[in-house]
Amino acid sequence: AEICWGHAAPVLYAAWAEAGFVKESDLLNLRKLDCDLEGHPTPKLEFVDVATGSLGQGLGAACGMAYTGKNFDKSSYRVYCMLGDGECSEGSVWEAMAFASYYQLDNLVAILDVNRLGQSEAAPLKHDMETYRKRCEAFGWNTYVVDGHDVEELCKAFWQAQQVKGKPTCIVAKTFKGKGLKNIEDQDNWHGKPIPKDRLDDILNDLQSQIQVPNKTVCPQLPSEDTAPADLSPILLPSPPAYKKGDKMATRRAYGLALARLGQASQRVVALDGDTKNSTFSDTFRKAFPDRYIECFIAEQNMVGVAIGCAARDRSVAFASTFAAFFSRAYDQIRMGAISQTNVNLVGSHCGVSIGEDGPSQMALEDLAMFRAIPTCTVFYPSDAVSTERAVELSANTKGICFIRTSRPDTAVLYSPDEKFEAGVAKVVRQSDSDQVTVIGAGVTVHEALAAADMLAAEGKNIRVIDPFTIKPLDAATILSSARATGGQIITVEDHYKEGGLGEAVLSAVGGEPGIVVTRLAVSGVPRSGKPQELLDLFGISAKHIANTVRQTFAN
Amino acid sequence: AEICWGHAAPVLYAAWAEAGFVKESDLLNLRKLDCDLEGHPTPKLEFVDVATGSLGQGLGAACGMAYTGKNFDKSSYRVYCMLGDGECSEGSVWEAMAFASYYQLDNLVAILDVNRLGQSEAAPLKHDMETYRKRCEAFGWNTYVVDGHDVEELCKAFWQAQQVKGKPTCIVAKTFKGKGLKNIEDQDNWHGKPIPKDRLDDILNDLQSQIQVPNKTVCPQLPSEDTAPADLSPILLPSPPAYKKGDKMATRRAYGLALARLGQASQRVVALDGDTKNSTFSDTFRKAFPDRYIECFIAEQNMVGVAIGCAARDRSVAFASTFAAFFSRAYDQIRMGAISQTNVNLVGSHCGVSIGEDGPSQMALEDLAMFRAIPTCTVFYPSDAVSTERAVELSANTKGICFIRTSRPDTAVLYSPDEKFEAGVAKVVRQSDSDQVTVIGAGVTVHEALAAADMLAAEGKNIRVIDPFTIKPLDAATILSSARATGGQIITVEDHYKEGGLGEAVLSAVGGEPGIVVTRLAVSGVPRSGKPQELLDLFGISAKHIANTVRQTFAN
Repeated sequence: AEICWGHAAPVLYAAWAEAGFVKESDLLNLRKLDCDLEGHPTPKLEFVDVATGSLGQGLGAACGMAYTGKNFDKSSYRVYCMLGDGECSEGSVWEAMAFASYYQLDNLVAILDVNRLGQSEAAPLKHDMETYRKRCEAFGWNTYVVDGHDVEELCKAFWQAQQVKGKPTCIVAKTFKGKGLKNIEDQDNWHGKPIPKDRLDDILNDLQSQIQVPNKTVCPQLPSEDTAPADLSPILLPSPPAYKKGDKMATRRAYGLALARLGQASQRVVALDGDTKNSTFSDTFRKAFPDRYIECFIAEQNMVGVAIGCAARDRSVAFASTFAAFFSRAYDQIRMGAISQTNVNLVGSHCGVSIGEDGPSQMALEDLAMFRAIPTCTVFYPSDAVSTERAVELSANTKGICFIRTSRPDTAVLYSPDEKFEAGVAKVVRQSDSDQVTVIGAGVTVHEALAAADMLAAEGKNIRVIDPFTIKPLDAATILSSARATGGQIITVEDHYKEGGLGEAVLSAVGGEPGIVVTRLAVSGVPRSGKPQELLDLFGISAKHIANTVRQTFAN
Repeated sequence: AEICWGHAAPVLYAAWAEAGFVKESDLLNLRKLDCDLEGHPTPKLEFVDVATGSLGQGLGAACGMAYTGKNFDKSSYRVYCMLGDGECSEGSVWEAMAFASYYQLDNLVAILDVNRLGQSEAAPLKHDMETYRKRCEAFGWNTYVVDGHDVEELCKAFWQAQQVKGKPTCIVAKTFKGKGLKNIEDQDNWHGKPIPKDRLDDILNDLQSQIQVPNKTVCPQLPSEDTAPADLSPILLPSPPAYKKGDKMATRRAYGLALARLGQASQRVVALDGDTKNSTFSDTFRKAFPDRYIECFIAEQNMVGVAIGCAARDRSVAFASTFAAFFSRAYDQIRMGAISQTNVNLVGSHCGVSIGEDGPSQMALEDLAMFRAIPTCTVFYPSDAVSTERAVELSANTKGICFIRTSRPDTAVLYSPDEKFEAGVAKVVRQSDSDQVTVIGAGVTVHEALAAADMLAAEGKNIRVIDPFTIKPLDAATILSSARATGGQIITVEDHYKEGGLGEAVLSAVGGEPGIVVTRLAVSGVPRSGKPQELLDLFGISAKHIANTVRQTFAN
């Protein structure tokens, strides 16, 4: 049983103190620096699986837990999710509502606490319980409207929910915020505020007088534990990558094949997609393991939420994919995922202008900036099919969030099947004793840099080319030693905006060192439709531009 | 009348060619590099106000246009928005549905094209028209389910919609994708694909035979134009800021006051918030101009969409505010906003660990990375009340997206009322002839840097302190000249993660120059609850840490 709580944290902590999981004396250290009882609960506390504090995210994670319980764990556990009425304005709630009914998650119960009040004014539906009922029912949920202060009514609803098959249940509870507190109940302006000291005694006396000592001790049945422990051993590819150097394959296609191969190694590997599976190639996994694929339709926030729920408590190793640009839709979920200490893997295809004709709305050009700024995140950016396969394998076994950036165009295989890969270890893919510039590409621009190296070699100019493999962590040591070997000259070239991407990652790595000069080629301004190679040219990140930039460096 | 279209772009372009707005010969240049008929329509085309291509965003923008028409322009124009069934999985659609009924936007019509097919498989509700009807009705819309291929039925529904008062109308149209095309109609795998050449003649003949030449020419009535032209003159503060140096005020509070003052200067200034108005202080504007404030409740995606709709066609100058962290919820809308060439202003409060006890979920630590990576964006980060007031004034008159980052703690007023501010022009707030390090702070860390300067001055060590005012554009010239004057030593200090923020912006500005060394102080790892000053200390960005870093630099 899981419960998702928000800013009612003190009530949660008090309940856990009552249950003996938190020391009562610790409650007075609420929100203090050296105490894990924070303003909003996080998994620093053993009994919290998913952090809260950004509204409307709990139900998506709960859907992932319920889906996992029903379909992967095949266990009896049930999932309970607390929701506020204010947060029902968040569309992510309705994405999750649609998901839960589509997948008939009858092991999921949402408790919707309709206390009428938002932070700064009443929530839009106030106490209009019938509209809440209609919305929940229209989204396919078995729905009960109850008096949220009537414990018997609540217990009955919970019992009834357990009997319903094929539908999730929503208990829409009418409540009054601050119930029973004189001049506070149902009043505005008490959001997240303590009781003033001078009113405390009165209010405590009042509350005390309302407590009815039960005439019997409640001994709830403990939940039966019929879930197999998760197998935490590393998940390894059944055999080395089977690609030949020079073969051409898009990294997005290699991703699908890699995940399907990894799926053979472990039943715990699952995939999710947002109706782009035929473009991201997660479809390859779905075809091999249809029972371990979750179609999330066009709802990226919920897809990430569900994936976080699937990955919670190490129940599964989840890979969620869509166009990298569309992960921007779920950035708040990703941000909160880091606070939740999730190990989810996110795979974004169609990065950069190299996607071509579909135009700027489909091009991810800020995704590296996004994911680099997530504290627990490892950012893989493979340049060929072999490194993609290793990126997938490493992601499955790396703690924290992993992001894999894949590309649309076919690219040549650069690495042999036995090449070893590690997060934070770059590959020097071209070098000589007389290199005068270090060029750092990533993904398609590694190939542009190699083409530039060929052009320049014909002129007697040698350059070193680095493929960083991961943008975070970035292999500062290899970059620094290469830069020193090439007169301090670095050129970065990336299919991403100039801000927050490869170039700035490299600057971060070398910015503390004197004598190194970084010249950056990146996309600037909103791009447009066109052929991939035309766009690489137009935005100054093609082999031709790299070669010209190198020539200028030689000239200086 | 506005129409939001997605990837059915070729149909839109053909319709405009028919209407004489696009040359018919240009249609054959679809998606080519030198043609503005892109894969998805953008405002490069004069008749497009908002770009499409990321699903579920059209209705939010349409809500903003309809709200503006009804409440600000007080005009008769009506707004029409095309939606696909697949994109109804996006929660943002339901945020907009709730918004439109709450504000009784009876000048808004959504046409929901239920063609059953998504990109990779059928949409979850397939042709279940009754469930669509129930959902739309539960969200408060007047709803008609029609045969989308029956022109008469459609015309009747449009006419009926015009008679309905107090409710928006949704026309849920059952359609078949590729209607009338043999072996294509209602089939999978035709998403975004052209007809194969060898089938083209057959299909064209087939279509030709289905065309019924109308026996009368249709002469639709032109819409009546009763909207006053927008006043495009600059909007200036009625008087200089009235703060005294040394007075203490949080920049978030100064934002509310500034916007209320700017609201006096122009009726076109409007404000939006997502139920955080008592924290962001947009409430100050609301109290002054209740008719120009739009409460968007807890739905940040829709808030940004509505703001973009309000700002479209220069109908208003919109300022939308929430906690800066929660703009991550709307990052896709912001990304698309740049493609839409919007001039919207976004104001994010509660940045960084300096918010204190509420914990990491409420702290914006990736927002600078986010907004810097938006190509059209100006990023203001004021450090006091005076610069906040000027940031608000400049935002109102700056093209592209503007982001203003405000802070929670009270900070001293640094600038006199007559200080001039400009985007991309930094302020040197402390300097002497013997400065040996340049320290660049922003927001609260400017004050920490000044405190450090005081500590160090007592030891006989002088430092230069820079307040960049805008992080994008960044004043590279002032930073470079200061760095050169201080032995090439720069220390940056920011209440933001290390990736994509102030430090990397500074590295970007100086990375091409040899001999400059940048040391960066920034937040690393997921933070926690605590007192603001304790957290600045714990994460190494307080005066004490700045002073220590300076001392190390002196020691080298």
